Amino acid sequence: MTSIQRPSGRAPDQLRPLSLQRRYTCHAEGSVLISCGDTRVLCTASVEEKVPPFLRGKGEGWITAEYGMLPRATKERTQREAARGGQGGRTMEIQRLIGRSLRACVDRSALGERTITLDCDVLQADGGTRCAAITGAYVALVDAIRQLQARRVIKKDPIFGAIAAVSVGICKGQPVLDLDYAEDAGCDTDMNVVMNDGGGFIELQGTAEGHAFRPDELQAMLALAGKGVAELIAAQRAALAER
Amino acid sequence: MTSIQRPSGRAPDQLRPLSLQRRYTCHAEGSVLISCGDTRVLCTASVEEKVPPFLRGKGEGWITAEYGMLPRATKERTQREAARGGQGGRTMEIQRLIGRSLRACVDRSALGERTITLDCDVLQADGGTRCAAITGAYVALVDAIRQLQARRVIKKDPIFGAIAAVSVGICKGQPVLDLDYAEDAGCDTDMNVVMNDGGGFIELQGTAEGHAFRPDELQAMLALAGKGVAELIAAQRAALAER
Amino acid sequence: MTSIQRPSGRAPDQLRPLSLQRRYTCHAEGSVLISCGDTRVLCTASVEEKVPPFLRGKGEGWITAEYGMLPRATKERTQREAARGGQGGRTMEIQRLIGRSLRACVDRSALGERTITLDCDVLQADGGTRCAAITGAYVALVDAIRQLQARRVIKKDPIFGAIAAVSVGICKGQPVLDLDYAEDAGCDTDMNVVMNDGGGFIELQGTAEGHAFRPDELQAMLALAGKGVAELIAAQRAALAER
Amino acid sequence: MTSIQRPSGRAPDQLRPLSLQRRYTCHAEGSVLISCGDTRVLCTASVEEKVPPFLRGKGEGWITAEYGMLPRATKERTQREAARGGQGGRTMEIQRLIGRSLRACVDRSALGERTITLDCDVLQADGGTRCAAITGAYVALVDAIRQLQARRVIKKDPIFGAIAAVSVGICKGQPVLDLDYAEDAGCDTDMNVVMNDGGGFIELQGTAEGHAFRPDELQAMLALAGKGVAELIAAQRAALAER
Amino acid sequence: MTSIQRPSGRAPDQLRPLSLQRRYTCHAEGSVLISCGDTRVLCTASVEEKVPPFLRGKGEGWITAEYGMLPRATKERTQREAARGGQGGRTMEIQRLIGRSLRACVDRSALGERTITLDCDVLQADGGTRCAAITGAYVALVDAIRQLQARRVIKKDPIFGAIAAVSVGICKGQPVLDLDYAEDAGCDTDMNVVMNDGGGFIELQGTAEGHAFRPDELQAMLALAGKGVAELIAAQRAALAER
Amino acid sequence: MTSIQRPSGRAPDQLRPLSLQRRYTCHAEGSVLISCGDTRVLCTASVEEKVPPFLRGKGEGWITAEYGMLPRATKERTQREAARGGQGGRTMEIQRLIGRSLRACVDRSALGERTITLDCDVLQADGGTRCAAITGAYVALVDAIRQLQARRVIKKDPIFGAIAAVSVGICKGQPVLDLDYAEDAGCDTDMNVVMNDGGGFIELQGTAEGHAFRPDELQAMLALAGKGVAELIAAQRAALAER
Repeated sequence: MTSIQRPSGRAPDQLRPLSLQRRYTCHAEGSVLISCGDTRVLCTASVEEKVPPFLRGKGEGWITAEYGMLPRATKERTQREAARGGQGGRTMEIQRLIGRSLRACVDRSALGERTITLDCDVLQADGGTRCAAITGAYVALVDAIRQLQARRVIKKDPIFGAIAAVSVGICKGQPVLDLDYAEDAGCDTDMNVVMNDGGGFIELQGTAEGHAFRPDELQAMLALAGKGVAELIAAQRAALAER
Repeated sequence: MTSIQRPSGRAPDQLRPLSLQRRYTCHAEGSVLISCGDTRVLCTASVEEKVPPFLRGKGEGWITAEYGMLPRATKERTQREAARGGQGGRTMEIQRLIGRSLRACVDRSALGERTITLDCDVLQADGGTRCAAITGAYVALVDAIRQLQARRVIKKDPIFGAIAAVSVGICKGQPVLDLDYAEDAGCDTDMNVVMNDGGGFIELQGTAEGHAFRPDELQAMLALAGKGVAELIAAQRAALAER
Repeated sequence: MTSIQRPSGRAPDQLRPLSLQRRYTCHAEGSVLISCGDTRVLCTASVEEKVPPFLRGKGEGWITAEYGMLPRATKERTQREAARGGQGGRTMEIQRLIGRSLRACVDRSALGERTITLDCDVLQADGGTRCAAITGAYVALVDAIRQLQARRVIKKDPIFGAIAAVSVGICKGQPVLDLDYAEDAGCDTDMNVVMNDGGGFIELQGTAEGHAFRPDELQAMLALAGKGVAELIAAQRAALAER
Repeated sequence: MTSIQRPSGRAPDQLRPLSLQRRYTCHAEGSVLISCGDTRVLCTASVEEKVPPFLRGKGEGWITAEYGMLPRATKERTQREAARGGQGGRTMEIQRLIGRSLRACVDRSALGERTITLDCDVLQADGGTRCAAITGAYVALVDAIRQLQARRVIKKDPIFGAIAAVSVGICKGQPVLDLDYAEDAGCDTDMNVVMNDGGGFIELQGTAEGHAFRPDELQAMLALAGKGVAELIAAQRAALAER
Repeated sequence: MTSIQRPSGRAPDQLRPLSLQRRYTCHAEGSVLISCGDTRVLCTASVEEKVPPFLRGKGEGWITAEYGMLPRATKERTQREAARGGQGGRTMEIQRLIGRSLRACVDRSALGERTITLDCDVLQADGGTRCAAITGAYVALVDAIRQLQARRVIKKDPIFGAIAAVSVGICKGQPVLDLDYAEDAGCDTDMNVVMNDGGGFIELQGTAEGHAFRPDELQAMLALAGKGVAELIAAQRAALAER
Repeated sequence: MTSIQRPSGRAPDQLRPLSLQRRYTCHAEGSVLISCGDTRVLCTASVEEKVPPFLRGKGEGWITAEYGMLPRATKERTQREAARGGQGGRTMEIQRLIGRSLRACVDRSALGERTITLDCDVLQADGGTRCAAITGAYVALVDAIRQLQARRVIKKDPIFGAIAAVSVGICKGQPVLDLDYAEDAGCDTDMNVVMNDGGGFIELQGTAEGHAFRPDELQAMLALAGKGVAELIAAQRAALAER
């Protein structure tokens, strides 16, 4: 199949330039600025010595996430959710996804009765913000856990495996990896795939925008996602290997 | 593979008893009570001669959905969202899914500048409420459209294809179709699949609860979903064929 | 006095066809679908082993009610209160009335420190929803209490007497019983009367819509209400006598 | 019948000392401080040259009311509703009652397309605040209408008749008029009666607190209410006769 | 410098007629109606035997304030904050200022673990409401403290010094004291000054409305404020000296 | 006077290291990251071709500001305002201050009927965030105006003069400039001063935390503020001189 030209000039299976900047801010136990092309998300991990009511006294910890978008992270200014009086449906959907995804790589018993909150705030948006948030939040989470271990608050590492996420889609009939905003807007199908380092699926959220997608298209997208997530996990490892 | 015993005694690929009761209430243009086992959702379609601001003057219609759960639809009473002061994240996520799914089978130009709102209210919950809502809302939507056609308000049928949804999962290693609450709670993976009558995917939302799911598990679940949706669409057709 | 023709063709002192369907849903301790003509309200009674803060440690129970209307229970779709961000004044007024009315037949010391919440959700509205809610909720409440007695959680029956409610009005000079929506809209006076099986008044809420009502009109309405409530209480008894 | 001793030493059919102070504040078109014993309510009438959406273009005006209680109008401080994020059920119930009651004496066509809002704010509470609000708001309303007439904005007087309200109750078996807080708290039945100067009923809201009330008790209470309202209307007239 | 004519005819350094009416309402521990010209604010002090969570167990008390404006305190009716669903930014800013100001004259250890809430409700507004609120609330606070001492709940007087506030401004180049609404609206600079009886500054909030103000203008305004506050504190003393 | 040692080792009249990074994000018409020591605020200016209702048709523009703090900008995580359901009093107070301050240097007629919104989001907090926000927002505002001029949307430069803000305080008796968090927490007095490049005051907000401040202390603080603002304005000019 001859591949169509992507707006960014990338190959169909090519990720956007990626960077993971640890210790981006100074107060949080983990603080990572992830850039995927022009998408930039600040992911902080905050440790608190308490758990939500439904977990009290069970000896287990909790991992949760909140997502926000600065008003002018986008091309047109969007109204500030705090000023509007609450979080919208899209925000809630995304932060629930981030939380679920990261809980999938944590042994919550080993964490003990504490909560780690992952705040993912989009400073600049160019598509794929929820996937960038998951990929970056994983690194912030590991940093926060390492600090707990260094402080000897927990003994056993509660993290098993790595988690990253990427979007895939079908654009003008072509399966493509890691859509930017221009591509996303014109796409027939958009899927967010969260996977672990064993190639297992954590979350799969596919939406037909234009026409329904066929099983073979699904397979092609999943193959691209597998390749992309492998590269993202390699980048996470490299970032975490730095001092 | 020897199949495990399901709590309901159903075969792994067996749907729950299904019924679609049209004209369940008298005011709405479409009103369907769908029962999937003990899950009962009242789906009404309401036609209004206006569109949201972002569509005004574009000659296109809009399809949207709202989802609610009566406080005692569940085993334990849950707080009424109106009393709590707003819809929670789960509700918003579900109603966005229902709306997107049904928009995927409607030619909004043929609908003209009007809105059809699908209210899906769970009277009794036993798992799979969002899938039941989509399957039932489709029938209510068709009834509302038929009324518009009968009143000669629209000429061309804006509906193309049929849409239904079913949940699938991996329970104790076994891929199963149409999970009830008991099964859902103990499952490793839970996926909601929205498909059309051409076998195309409209929405795919899979979540690993216990462990990440493998590509072969995904294929097995998708195969079950395809079978289930085909049966649901046949039931929709049969219901709509009645006077 | 020659009576005017009612829109429904009923005699001035005639109730609408009534049905009380117990165990309409499966989870609640009491679950009753009441139909008064085209008005249909689902009344569930939920028992919880806690009381509001102002009653803690006093050895008394609490009876409270919540009221809701499905968006398309009405001729025109009304906005969902959960989506609008809270309950409106009419809803609050009605649910306070239901709660007060039912507390009037319960010995709260005999109930012990537990709360019974009566959720009254209107599936279809054709006038008189608050009265139907009270009449149906009484049956659901008795069912919930019986279950507590059967489970030997409470010893003494906390219910004394029966409670039912009906609307009366003056339409075109004619006192009439149990107004439906068409009648209610064109009425000069509308009164909701809650009574017990001893003929005592629990609540009386009369509103002059067109002109002020005279003492003799009040007496005529109260007489009709007495007759109607007696019939409703008989129907409650019959329903509760079934297994 | 030998009458019991009332906490205030009043005769069973005796109103509390009443005063109606017009032009209490300077900005409102009508501004009345009503004192009924220790209950003090500031009632202002504000004219605005607009109507709610449902009345636009119909040539009719609107009368509406809002009710509030200063946090320390009561014995114990109650939380400020603005700080709590909204009006409670009791507030909504009361302000709906005030609005309905006053609409019953206004020809809204003669008023023209304008709104008069009656703000009733309780400065000090000692029972009977909603009745005091109605009685005082009537005077504020007349003042605002007079100003419209003086400014020749309207020609025909839209006010027909006078409206006042009083509470009655059964305390220790004794029917009594105009309950103060001490009396109200210990009462078996509490009824608010809104009447016009022709002796017609506008609103009747009776609640059995302790035991259901009998028809003869109702008659006794209504007789007291008739006497009380006549005195209140005489006081309104006297106040309005002053320059 | 020849002084310009003020709208009120006052001299540049002249306060409006001031009155402080103690025991204006009967329930609050302190209740003061302050009138500064046509500005009238009811200030009540309520004592509660509890402190906010952040102070529990520390042996210290808390002083806080809430501010409100009756809807028709102003020339045009303003929407009721409780009906609008919350307090606006201006309200929050003002009540935070009142609270901070009064905490500056209270030894919170001597107060013990109790909270005094100062509710400042504007009955009629003509400029300078926040300053009037502070000046009046101080008197209400002292009355509440005296009652605690009289009841021997506290031993040591926790009040040190007196606090009052006044506005100053530059109007048409002329520094003026205690602006009313007409003056405030046309002013270049508006400053609220809270001072104690030692001539020290508690709060200083100046805003250039038209052009930036120069250091010499600031000095002139501060001199006027000092004179005004001294007179206000004298009036507080006189009021508190009455029985 | 021998100066006390500041926690940061700075001289009493020394600002923290300052940087102003323009074009920090790509979508906004102006986007500046200001760092004042460890305080980092992202200030974006967004131009919209509309004005608030109260300005429609008047030919004038509007400048407004919103302020936010990322949850983990602070030492302890603070709750996200969007999740809490609205902006708190401190946020509202600050964003009102920023808006007022910047309006003081803009000729709104020359701007025409358009709105510039300054979003100031604190990425990292170490005291002085509101002052940093004002100083940074000024640069973002100028960038947005320059773009409007470059696009020939406006002809006349609506900016007159420069605006910057700094905090000053009295710490252990010593007047100091530009307080960081450690210093601020232990300070007796804290004042935020907004000035223009002509040495005029735009806003002055001083609060006595410990004891009231004397006139001579006020003068010392104002002198420090004048020095600090002059340096900040020089830095703004240097940043704006870059391409």
